[in-house]
Amino acid sequence: MPPTLLSRPSQLTLSRRLPFTSRLARSSVLTSPSFSCSSRTPLQKSYRKAYSSSSPPSSRFGPSYLSEDIRQHQARKMAPQLDGYFEQVDSLSDHFIERLRQAVAIPSISSEAARRPDVVRMGHFLADELKKLGASVELRELGPQPGTDLTLPPCVLARYGNDKNKRTILVYGHYDVQPAEKSDGWDTEPFELTVKEDGRMLGRGSTDDKGPVLGWLNAIEAHQKAGIDFPVNLLMCFEGMEEYGSEGLDDLINEEGKKYFADADAVCISDNYWLGTEKPCLTYGLRGCNYYSVEVSGPGADLHSGVFGGTAQEPMTDLVRILASLVDTDGKIQIKGIMEQVAPVTKEEETLYDGIAFTMETLQESLGSKTTIFEDKKATLMARWRYPSLSVHGVEGAFSAPGAKTVIPAKVIGKFSIRTVPDMDIDKTNEAVYKHVNDFFKTLNSKNTMKVYAQHTGKWWVASPNHWNFSAAAKATERVWGVKPDFTREGGSIPVTLTFEQATGKNVLLLPMGSSTDGAHSINEKLDKKNYIEGIKLLGAYLHYVAEEPTNE
Amino acid sequence: MPPTLLSRPSQLTLSRRLPFTSRLARSSVLTSPSFSCSSRTPLQKSYRKAYSSSSPPSSRFGPSYLSEDIRQHQARKMAPQLDGYFEQVDSLSDHFIERLRQAVAIPSISSEAARRPDVVRMGHFLADELKKLGASVELRELGPQPGTDLTLPPCVLARYGNDKNKRTILVYGHYDVQPAEKSDGWDTEPFELTVKEDGRMLGRGSTDDKGPVLGWLNAIEAHQKAGIDFPVNLLMCFEGMEEYGSEGLDDLINEEGKKYFADADAVCISDNYWLGTEKPCLTYGLRGCNYYSVEVSGPGADLHSGVFGGTAQEPMTDLVRILASLVDTDGKIQIKGIMEQVAPVTKEEETLYDGIAFTMETLQESLGSKTTIFEDKKATLMARWRYPSLSVHGVEGAFSAPGAKTVIPAKVIGKFSIRTVPDMDIDKTNEAVYKHVNDFFKTLNSKNTMKVYAQHTGKWWVASPNHWNFSAAAKATERVWGVKPDFTREGGSIPVTLTFEQATGKNVLLLPMGSSTDGAHSINEKLDKKNYIEGIKLLGAYLHYVAEEPTNE
Repeated sequence: MPPTLLSRPSQLTLSRRLPFTSRLARSSVLTSPSFSCSSRTPLQKSYRKAYSSSSPPSSRFGPSYLSEDIRQHQARKMAPQLDGYFEQVDSLSDHFIERLRQAVAIPSISSEAARRPDVVRMGHFLADELKKLGASVELRELGPQPGTDLTLPPCVLARYGNDKNKRTILVYGHYDVQPAEKSDGWDTEPFELTVKEDGRMLGRGSTDDKGPVLGWLNAIEAHQKAGIDFPVNLLMCFEGMEEYGSEGLDDLINEEGKKYFADADAVCISDNYWLGTEKPCLTYGLRGCNYYSVEVSGPGADLHSGVFGGTAQEPMTDLVRILASLVDTDGKIQIKGIMEQVAPVTKEEETLYDGIAFTMETLQESLGSKTTIFEDKKATLMARWRYPSLSVHGVEGAFSAPGAKTVIPAKVIGKFSIRTVPDMDIDKTNEAVYKHVNDFFKTLNSKNTMKVYAQHTGKWWVASPNHWNFSAAAKATERVWGVKPDFTREGGSIPVTLTFEQATGKNVLLLPMGSSTDGAHSINEKLDKKNYIEGIKLLGAYLHYVAEEPTNE
Repeated sequence: MPPTLLSRPSQLTLSRRLPFTSRLARSSVLTSPSFSCSSRTPLQKSYRKAYSSSSPPSSRFGPSYLSEDIRQHQARKMAPQLDGYFEQVDSLSDHFIERLRQAVAIPSISSEAARRPDVVRMGHFLADELKKLGASVELRELGPQPGTDLTLPPCVLARYGNDKNKRTILVYGHYDVQPAEKSDGWDTEPFELTVKEDGRMLGRGSTDDKGPVLGWLNAIEAHQKAGIDFPVNLLMCFEGMEEYGSEGLDDLINEEGKKYFADADAVCISDNYWLGTEKPCLTYGLRGCNYYSVEVSGPGADLHSGVFGGTAQEPMTDLVRILASLVDTDGKIQIKGIMEQVAPVTKEEETLYDGIAFTMETLQESLGSKTTIFEDKKATLMARWRYPSLSVHGVEGAFSAPGAKTVIPAKVIGKFSIRTVPDMDIDKTNEAVYKHVNDFFKTLNSKNTMKVYAQHTGKWWVASPNHWNFSAAAKATERVWGVKPDFTREGGSIPVTLTFEQATGKNVLLLPMGSSTDGAHSINEKLDKKNYIEGIKLLGAYLHYVAEEPTNE
């Protein structure tokens, strides 16, 4: 890490050392006195029925999928400069969906070598769209991908506006996607955006993260077409390797923290999800992710199990025993030295979870089953946000197709990851994992060869939710959705969040567009039309409020 | 099973009930008095150097890759009617390799739906070649493949010769192959036969089982071109689903046991391997194979491990625990009720293993490592031949590609198989497996759903090695290779062996062509040129000796 990144150690230390509860408790300062609160109670009560089919389709304001309450709220002229912008977004909605369709059609899968040209093509698509909108754009090359003969896809760096009298907001997103094949179980072609009658827009990358990335471009275009002054200078950083550990990006962010990104006043990332399906949220914490491989090898090549079964030690036998030693059915991590690092729960924290709009029913709907570990909301939210988890993802090198193949695989690689939380340390966690796996393998007395190593690691992140960056986003959320957002943490990992915080020394906000049932990384990934279109309004509104919010750093 | 198949119960019962050792001990009767033994000792001593490069290339008899000892032995006119046949095989060797090249070029992978047309094409190729040789051929359709919308590839039934004064030999082989991709690690294109300077002929199916199948056709052709009367009537049964559990074949064999195959006097199958690389063997026993799936499912779709890790029970966590409970590093099966069924080792059996031409060095060469469970030959042969083994083959539904994918798979299917031996019973074995897995799963207290079931099962087989079918093959082996064969059992499974025995009521002989390092089912599968060409001689010589061997049933 370059020394410049340590230039604001006290702020960074504070940000990560603040007790969990004190920050959440202070989120009440977000009720700004300049903000009309007259209709807050009925609106808060009504957000659950906001998109019920009983909403009258003939109302005067806004698109028909919004409830009467929200339409009237949006029409209330609380932030009048936004009215023209919102109308423009509505009238451009088909155009914005078409832009998303073009983006989804490019299978920019960063983890598959054969798709690398598509990832690069997607980067160029974004750059071209940005140039058309008048942004200055650089396709920043990141060099070779370590351990491969591939070249990393370029990072799209762009600037829109350079007015010293305006705040500058740095936004980040990624244009690569997870792998997807129709045969994985998709109802539709994963790389053809399919808009269903109920508003679901199915397609790989629709919600993760092409929809949100295009949200920023769409916000610029709607301002231009509505003739409304863009309220901030916008710096953009869109990468193409997020789904493969953001390879090459940290160096660039660290390098540009005080150069390309030097005048950023705050950072905003739209790459996560609402906690449920109806109430928006702002996110101030993420778990980290350490991804491990355990490699067991023995024979020189795969073996016929009839000829060699019973006479040779089988790598797969050792591997499943190692994988079985890591975690139990109820998610309890069996590795010594992991839970010992977790910050204790304070009494104040105990009281925080009840107020969050989250139900076990919504969780089970997202899950598609009732196989939850806990029966109650509080234990579930704590497990997702503030405790580590360990998942076994699969085995490379073993038979994985349908049918029956009687082969003894010669070399198998088990993959698992640990989601990390405060105050876990990456090195300590790695050491605990290596020690556990090595010690366990020794007990097997195997002649096979075993290696355990981290494929990538990423620290957890917790930010300060009482910063003006968050209060502006809270106002924008209430303006668009008619309800105060929940302040949440997330179980997932967006490693660059921490990198941006460290490299710029600025507050980072996570402002989600999609909802909990979007199925990022799964089959049938989707973004709801209302989340996309209202999400574009939200991103634009956030920039207006952020331009006006008093400094409270 | 149709009642006609039980018409010779005493013979069948005897065949399978004979104690392990008494049959092996009696294999000494194979030293027929009509067979010259004068050079046995020097030949037996010299077979190890038979193919050393120091053999003089300018000798008068036979191809240059044979040692002087073997060339002189083949020239000794012990079975004079074979001389012209052997010479013809040598002069047609390029033509026979070309025929193998054509067969390998057809990727007849029975386990892959997309390759089904290639499997059918391979069946037609065989049928056409047989017709050209004057055989009467039927492409017998086997109907739809259960559980799929595929049609099974046809079984090639053929007859060559119909002389009531000759014995009739039924031979079996398969024309389908295991899956293969260059990217699995092959040095050459798997479906292009590549003949190396050292005589290795690489290609999927070269040794398993296209080389041996073509061996029978080549033997017919060489007889025709040499103008030598074919010594027997040959019935042929070549199937296209062996690598996928021989689906549909049992019904046909049972149906035709007393019809198409009615006049078969004995059965010969060339679909296994020498125990090592230099000494031929005849095989009278095989292990069975029961193949199991364990399916664990929970969530409705794959999940993001950040969002759901720690809150949902993960099917993969349960599956690896189940798989880890089955067998230990040293191959000891942990399922109660399996080892309990194994026939005890008698004192006589204890003495049998020392005489077999097998070394740990050869095993380790085939294995490509020193990761054997046992250090000595006897324990290793017993583990391969007369004890069951359990191999974990892989997991379907989990992440199996290189790289790092942070998905919680929604449904995973673990695959494992048990190689079975006398006196294990299929139903008892299934029940023991189901009980173990179900009981173990209950201890996990999981909300996930688990199913365990057999994908296919197949019984072990042990035949009578003192039958004239075996003594004829032993003479042919000594005639071609200059050494008495070992009498061996095999660890692998050829389920149709037992079906043929039961359906025809006749003795079945396994007469291998390839050697232990051929790598059936692995990358770089090969058949050595010498094993192919001398193997063609062997198949023909076997038919000559079988025509003359006195009945000793």
